[in-house]
Formats: sequence, C-alpha cells, structure tokens
Amino acid sequence: MGIKNRKVVIALGGNALQEPGSPSTAEAQLAVVRKTCSYLAELNAEGYEMTIVHGNGPQVGRLALSQSIAETENSDLPAMPFDVCNAMTQGYIGYQIQQCLRDALRRRKRDVPVVTLITQVVVDKNDTAFQNPTKPIGPFYTKEEADIISQEKGFSMKEDSGRGWRRLIASPEPKKIIELDSIKRLCDSTIVILAGGGGIPVIENSDGSLSGIAAVIDKDLSADCFAEAIEADVFLILTGVDRVCINFGKPNQRELDYITVDEAKEYMEQGHFPPGSMLPKIMAGIRFATKFPGKRTIITSLYKALDALEGKAGTEITMK
Amino acid sequence: MGIKNRKVVIALGGNALQEPGSPSTAEAQLAVVRKTCSYLAELNAEGYEMTIVHGNGPQVGRLALSQSIAETENSDLPAMPFDVCNAMTQGYIGYQIQQCLRDALRRRKRDVPVVTLITQVVVDKNDTAFQNPTKPIGPFYTKEEADIISQEKGFSMKEDSGRGWRRLIASPEPKKIIELDSIKRLCDSTIVILAGGGGIPVIENSDGSLSGIAAVIDKDLSADCFAEAIEADVFLILTGVDRVCINFGKPNQRELDYITVDEAKEYMEQGHFPPGSMLPKIMAGIRFATKFPGKRTIITSLYKALDALEGKAGTEITMK
Repeated sequence: MGIKNRKVVIALGGNALQEPGSPSTAEAQLAVVRKTCSYLAELNAEGYEMTIVHGNGPQVGRLALSQSIAETENSDLPAMPFDVCNAMTQGYIGYQIQQCLRDALRRRKRDVPVVTLITQVVVDKNDTAFQNPTKPIGPFYTKEEADIISQEKGFSMKEDSGRGWRRLIASPEPKKIIELDSIKRLCDSTIVILAGGGGIPVIENSDGSLSGIAAVIDKDLSADCFAEAIEADVFLILTGVDRVCINFGKPNQRELDYITVDEAKEYMEQGHFPPGSMLPKIMAGIRFATKFPGKRTIITSLYKALDALEGKAGTEITMK
Repeated sequence: MGIKNRKVVIALGGNALQEPGSPSTAEAQLAVVRKTCSYLAELNAEGYEMTIVHGNGPQVGRLALSQSIAETENSDLPAMPFDVCNAMTQGYIGYQIQQCLRDALRRRKRDVPVVTLITQVVVDKNDTAFQNPTKPIGPFYTKEEADIISQEKGFSMKEDSGRGWRRLIASPEPKKIIELDSIKRLCDSTIVILAGGGGIPVIENSDGSLSGIAAVIDKDLSADCFAEAIEADVFLILTGVDRVCINFGKPNQRELDYITVDEAKEYMEQGHFPPGSMLPKIMAGIRFATKFPGKRTIITSLYKALDALEGKAGTEITMK
C-alpha cells in the first residue's frame, strides 16, 4: 500500500450504470454494474479506500414517468414527489452496486463491507436555481395540457426540442450532507455508497427541521461537497471519456492531461464543456482543487481509473 | 438512564406508516410517520437505544402495480423485479422515518443521527416456501390473462377473493443479514433503520455471490433475525393493538399480559392469530423468547410502547 494517497471519493457517471442503447431493465443495468464493480474492486485491491456517489438521471426520469402514467390510470396510485423518487433510486442503484461490489471484492479475497446510506442533502431555499428551473423531467405534454398542469400544480413547463412540453425542475447547490457523521464513522472500514443522484434535496426550515423539495442536485457537486467534508486525498470523477478534451468532436480536438484551475475556468467560459455533461464535472473539480491545492482532482474513465490514480492517465486539475 | 435494558430492536407495523382509509400519497404517509416518530423519540429520550425494522406491504404492492401499468403503456418503462421493488421502498420509507425521527429528536434537544441502510437478507433457495408461494402481489387479471402470464413468465397465479387472479410470491425464512457488521458498527451511536419490508431477498450462490430473488420476507421474522444477531435486550413488536388477544373480536375476547412460549404455541395452533397479521409477530416473538429466555419480548401498540418497556402495558412473551 505504501505512500499512496488512499482516501478516494468517486463520482460515478451514468455510463457506469447503463450502456447507451441497452434495454432499461434492472437486469440489463445489473450486468453493467457488475462490470463496473470489477474495476472498482481492482482499485480497492491496490490499496485505495473509496466512497461512491453515483448518478441517477435515466433511472429517476423513468420512475417519474412510470408513476405519472400509473396515476393517470388508477387514482389509488398517486405519483411520488420528487424527493421520494430520488430516495427510491438511491435504494435501487445502491442495492445493485453494493451487491456487485461485494461479489467483485470477494472474488479478489477481499472481505470489505459495502453499504448504501440513504442520504439527504441540504439546499438553500433561496437558491436562485428555484427561480429558474432548468432540468426537464417526466412525461411530455401538449401545450394545452402543460398550461393546465402549470396552473393546477404551479410547475414550470417548457417546450423540449420539438418533442412536447415537460416539467422543469431546479438544480440548486448542495450545501450540507445530513448523514455526514454516520458516513464518516463507517467509511474507514466500509465502502459507503451515498448521495446517489446527488442526494435527496431537502431544505432546512427555520426551526431546523427538514422538508423534501422538488429539485435535482448535481451528483458531481454533491460528491465534491462530501470529498471536501472528509478531506479526501483524491477526488476521482469517472465519466465516459479517458481525458477531458477541448474542441471535443472537432478536427482540432485536444486531450488534456493536466490543467490548472485558471485554464479550466477559461475553457469553461469559452464553452468547451456542455452543460449536464462535462460542465458539472469541471465545476466540481475546480472546487475541490481550489479548496485543497495539495490534494488530487482527476477526471477520467472507469477503465483508466487505476492508471490515473498512478499518474499515468486521465486529466488532473491543479492549482498551478 | 440507570439499569434499564437499553438496546431495543423495534419491528414497526404498517399502521405506523399509513392510517386505514387515508390517501396513499407520500404526503399523507409523511404525516403518519411524523406522529409515529414523536413516540419513538420519546423512547430515545427515556434512555432506550433503538434500531428499526419497518413493514412495506401496501407501499411495495402499489409500486409493483404502478410499474406493471406503466410497462403496459410504454415498453421503455420495464417493471422492476421484486428485489429491486423492495430496495426502492427501503429508500422511500427509510427516508421518511430518518427525516421525521431526526426532527422529533431535535425537538427534544437530542442530536442522535438516524440513517437508513439498504439491507440484503439471505434466504435459502431450497426453502419450501418457494414450492408454495402464498403472498398475492400486484395487479388483478382475468383467468385468461393469468394463464398467459403463468405460461410466459412462470409465475404462480391464484384467484383472490373473487376480485380476480393475482401473482403469488414466496415468503421464505430470513437466514442472515448481509450488512450486519456495518449496522453493528453504527447502532451504538446511531439509530439505524434496516431491512425495511423484511429486507431485499437474496440467495447465496455456490461461489458465495448473491442474487436477488422474487420473494417477500416477513419483516417481524427479519427483525427477530437481527435482534438475535445483536443480542438485543428487548425485542419490541409494535402493531395496531395494545395487547395480543385470544378470541379476538368475539364476545369472549381476552387480552393477554404475559404468555409463555408454550401458551403462545397452543393459541397459535388453535388458530387465534390470523396469518399475515398477528401470526408472524407471535412466531417472531416465540423465536426470540426461546433463544434468549433472560431477555424481553413484547408485543404492543406504538402508543403503549413506553409503558410496555416499563412493564405496565403490552403482552410479554416469556419462557415460563
């Protein structure tokens, strides 16, 4: 194990859970998760401790849609609010990861417990994101239906790429992880899966009590929030590409091995990173690198994760 | 705190989550959970440590039904298998309990962490329950539809009280809690919610890996399994009545304050306890009382829980 920086917080992208074009069944997802976990087990076998924050975009979208359809057909099947939908996907995806990662570790003769903690993440009710919801979610409606829903339920509705009208929900900043102390108590000995899909968005009321709220917190930003709170040695953001690129998909595409925070901000302003894709990863990476200049912030793919931890792959964000 | 037997495992019945006749929305459930948690917080304030195993019958039934409806309408919304449905309800119900219990504890100036751990419970793939599934679940079908489903998917189908045909699933015995070590590590300092709905049913394959399976584990039996594993001081089974009765609902109904294991078995054989209701609670209670004659096994209502712990209410099952 030696002198490695061992404590790694992993933000696990959607492609580690579902492959593009594969069926959206739990069984198909389990096969992808199983493959993903064999890579994660390898990191553990090499001496890295890890905590895992995963995405839930397609899963929570389908859950919200299926509940909306069922509610229309049967009034005794009311759709769950959005905070509950997040909690349900934490259970679903967390279960699959904890089962497959346990198995993958055992194949390597490593008896490391893996658990999922249902996680609430506090957002500020005055976050400007609530005035300007941006994330489309759930079924498509006609303009007439959208107007009725907007009036009846107060939802923000927007036309989505010519396919119809959809509800928009806010994507506020994560401020605090409610279950942090319990996660800290476990994560030295146990691989903890937390804040799936960015965590259940809750606001703190004036008496300190919590209320769920309809929002989606970006999972990369929640992972940064956690990595900062536990002062992780490495913040490892796993995505579909081996390295961050500028001019992505163009003839002058260029892979980046090291970038400074200032360079990352400049590329961001130049529009190199699409929102909802590479942009939140860069933003989360900039935050961690700025807060902990002596620690490591890496963006890479699952397949290059070990090489990247060894300094041989991926994009590392540094202060200078 | 004194000499109290402090370590209490609570099996929380369905009426602690939803009131009969109230709407099946998450919001209505949250109001019931909030009230339930004020009683649980009182136990904590009186010096009792607790872990909580809750039911999920109506919730998982509605989830399976809503997924089945959505799948029929939209083939990109495949219904989740039953192990995943359990995991989703662990997330849903665990989230509501952990939020409300934290708030109720804070109102009493108690800063005790509350977390939900997604829990897998091992069952024996040779359990005879798999040859004789008994729990009806999901939508009602016509006989013709039921025959097709039975042929296509291999499900057991049965006519249910003149309302149509439904899928039956097995209710095998809980053998082992996979996440036990992590729960033990937390539960001295933290209120842990675990094995909701009896836990995710999994079987151990010959190589030691786990596979989810379509089954429902009785939550009272899983709670006993856990109470035995941590050698709890008290196994407290909360239900809709203050005391166990014989001749329940008849003119000669009699409330029981103390019963021995032998008496309990005799009443059980005489058919005093309906399956799916009081019967599994009595069975779970008998197991714990038999294994730990020096400890306490109590069946009572949420409202009498504190009195029962003080020896002033409820039904206590003893060896002699």
